[in-house]
Amino acid sequence: MNMSDNELPENDGQDPVITESDRLIASDRIEGTAVFGKNHEKIGSVYNFMVDKVSGKASYAVMSFGGFLGIGERYHPLPWDALTYDVELGGYRVDISREQLEEAPNFAAQENPWGDPEYGRRLHSHYGYPYGL
Amino acid sequence: MNMSDNELPENDGQDPVITESDRLIASDRIEGTAVFGKNHEKIGSVYNFMVDKVSGKASYAVMSFGGFLGIGERYHPLPWDALTYDVELGGYRVDISREQLEEAPNFAAQENPWGDPEYGRRLHSHYGYPYGL
Repeated sequence: MNMSDNELPENDGQDPVITESDRLIASDRIEGTAVFGKNHEKIGSVYNFMVDKVSGKASYAVMSFGGFLGIGERYHPLPWDALTYDVELGGYRVDISREQLEEAPNFAAQENPWGDPEYGRRLHSHYGYPYGL
Repeated sequence: MNMSDNELPENDGQDPVITESDRLIASDRIEGTAVFGKNHEKIGSVYNFMVDKVSGKASYAVMSFGGFLGIGERYHPLPWDALTYDVELGGYRVDISREQLEEAPNFAAQENPWGDPEYGRRLHSHYGYPYGL
């Protein structure tokens, strides 16, 4: 992936509104960004992310991978703090492998795991992050 | 707009992944949500929102209105704290009128105002919010 002057991927021409700075990134540019795991292998991409309505803070990045044309795709949420933007890779880096991700909590399209108030706590616990909500 | 059990708009069938709770909202459901101003008139909708890369916090909601088929559309960023989700209206409420919004700082497609490090400060000042970045 080509890189722009700062640490964000170049606008691919799909989005007419280029909105970025060193400090800020647009929500719809986070969506679709590649995620790399251990050994810098691409393990998926950000489908969307969950925002805490009270604090306004991004709490979970929901990764998608697998499936074909959207059929059979699984969604794997990660605590937001597990992601680090890597300029050289041109995407987010997480300290897990694709195999670990496959074993981690995930859900299918049309499922809404977030309705369970304990779901976030279990995600944090699974990935070893303190649950601060 | 019909409302689901909690305070979010119903999934419109476009997005196969229903991701919501009382506490969390998916990034791609914030995008497209209607924004209502004084007298509960609809003054636009959320185009996207800017996330602080360090804190992970939503900092500005970028509203779009005007234009036709994307031509001539203008983008008006608001401090995130200016938006309140209104269950009855089925969208965000802000304490400004459409006329005030038209006069407020805005930019066109292909412009990137965020490259100016003072832009956020000016937005906060314009809307009377303390600048906390």
